[in-house]
Amino acid sequence: METIENKTLPGREECAGALKNVFDAMYVLNGKWKLPLVLCLMQSPKRFNELQKEIKGISPKVLANELKDLELNFLIQRNVYPTTPVRIVYEATAYSHTLKNILAELSHWGENHRNKVKGKI
Amino acid sequence: METIENKTLPGREECAGALKNVFDAMYVLNGKWKLPLVLCLMQSPKRFNELQKEIKGISPKVLANELKDLELNFLIQRNVYPTTPVRIVYEATAYSHTLKNILAELSHWGENHRNKVKGKI
Repeated sequence: METIENKTLPGREECAGALKNVFDAMYVLNGKWKLPLVLCLMQSPKRFNELQKEIKGISPKVLANELKDLELNFLIQRNVYPTTPVRIVYEATAYSHTLKNILAELSHWGENHRNKVKGKI
Repeated sequence: METIENKTLPGREECAGALKNVFDAMYVLNGKWKLPLVLCLMQSPKRFNELQKEIKGISPKVLANELKDLELNFLIQRNVYPTTPVRIVYEATAYSHTLKNILAELSHWGENHRNKVKGKI
């Protein structure tokens, strides 16, 4: 296989393993909302309503489900402050920072792909 | 924001841009099948039936749709050879190699996350 950029993909014999890994990663990160949500919370902790404003087009029901999924996978944390009224703030966990390289690569790729589709490249 | 690993995420003022980029990337790559499919075809060109065997659990209808989506986004190519019977082979395009870093990062993360969930880390 050609090596176009700096990183090499696993060889053919490791294909099944790499495929399983990518599949497992996508099982956790699937859908169009989860990674943008994690990125958004890595910038700063936010309340439910703030997230809904920032992530355009997500419904409250889907947002609630996505947040639960992310919490189950140790990527975000739900903090409840016993004020009156109770204040609930979501924040990215230290573990979510393991996604930083993926997010940086996706951001880079998304920008390039948008330009490609627009015919600018 | 803390910098835990070697790559830094965009600052807060660039948040909206990065969010849009990741969102655009996930719009193209969403779902659990597309990235594993691209990885599978990067290893070697394959026929429809071979793909169905390799990507466990995908239905023929979903596989056909995913292949069409990937073709529209320049990530794979559908080659028709005028033999009898006609032979159709899917292969990863040169452009799909721009996903290599993302796939390598996802493979790495997927493996670690699987171990974390199993309580090995």
